[in-house]
Amino acid sequence: MDICAYSYEEYLHMVKSFHGNLAPGLVIGGFMVDLAMRNLPEGEFFDAISETPVCLPDAVQILTPCTIGNGWLSIVPFGRFAVTLYDKYTGAGVRVYLDTKKLEAWPEVRDWYLKKKKKSEQDKDLLMAQIKEAGHGMLGVQKVQVDPEKVRRKKLGPVVFCPVCGEAYPSRDGDSCRNCQGETPYTNVIPVSVPKQ
Amino acid sequence: MDICAYSYEEYLHMVKSFHGNLAPGLVIGGFMVDLAMRNLPEGEFFDAISETPVCLPDAVQILTPCTIGNGWLSIVPFGRFAVTLYDKYTGAGVRVYLDTKKLEAWPEVRDWYLKKKKKSEQDKDLLMAQIKEAGHGMLGVQKVQVDPEKVRRKKLGPVVFCPVCGEAYPSRDGDSCRNCQGETPYTNVIPVSVPKQ
Repeated sequence: MDICAYSYEEYLHMVKSFHGNLAPGLVIGGFMVDLAMRNLPEGEFFDAISETPVCLPDAVQILTPCTIGNGWLSIVPFGRFAVTLYDKYTGAGVRVYLDTKKLEAWPEVRDWYLKKKKKSEQDKDLLMAQIKEAGHGMLGVQKVQVDPEKVRRKKLGPVVFCPVCGEAYPSRDGDSCRNCQGETPYTNVIPVSVPKQ
Repeated sequence: MDICAYSYEEYLHMVKSFHGNLAPGLVIGGFMVDLAMRNLPEGEFFDAISETPVCLPDAVQILTPCTIGNGWLSIVPFGRFAVTLYDKYTGAGVRVYLDTKKLEAWPEVRDWYLKKKKKSEQDKDLLMAQIKEAGHGMLGVQKVQVDPEKVRRKKLGPVVFCPVCGEAYPSRDGDSCRNCQGETPYTNVIPVSVPKQ
């Protein structure tokens, strides 16, 4: 009942520390990454895909070398609860998903996943117990061939100075940076002086 | 010379462990998050914005409770090297950016940031030494008002079963999931049987 190199309890501790709370999706995600690692094609380096931004990317970041900031983890917006690990050179990969057919045996997990109950109606203890009991048993596995170009972060390319804000930005974005083209989420921008260290 | 609750050396160790290598952008990112924390508006809970997917999100994930998976960290595609922490209720925030004018004093950092040298021409030791020497001195700070709706992850909403793959997906995506609508990065999908635990 280990999750990658950790005991179940150690993994729960890491989830609390990194993610801030014991989210059910992150515990399931731990089993998913573990099962993917056990079915990994041969090869020295692998990259990861999470098909949802919710919870699952943190299981990948806790358990593998792949992070958002190093670019080895990509998030694709399919909204499916699935993770793929693949050889970064050949694209040979393994995809693990939450198999809703198998979830019939664990109704509290199914109802959580399919959002059949409001959060206030959920029995969190029962939910977590069923997740632990189900383990790999609620998951499906597929061998897949990944086209890395479709998921990998694009290089930012050459940078130039924005004529509006004065900061460096990727020249491919146009005559000014995307913030100054109107996408900014900021108002009332006021400079603050930085005291010398 | 601390970075948030850690010594400089402790932070470098955490970077290597989480990110896999001592990326210059992640060391600068540590100083940025530290400076943002020192200028944080009052308030109990803050969310984070990284204006680039490269390196900087990992500094946020290492040093704050905000992660991609818990949704408290948002990445906006402006390609500016800047991070913002803001009160999740009021939107009052602080933005820290790499100030290219100040970088004139540290030419190896400037050349790295503006991509003036090929990686093979960089002096990595000099670069890291200048980053450590510069610390907060290469950064600019702004008070900003954030519109959280413009950056926050949207809720996935109700889920239904995809008639093609059979997996659950957000119904707002249409009659089938986005993978099966043609965005898939996968070919040669072959089911693998999962042995019972």
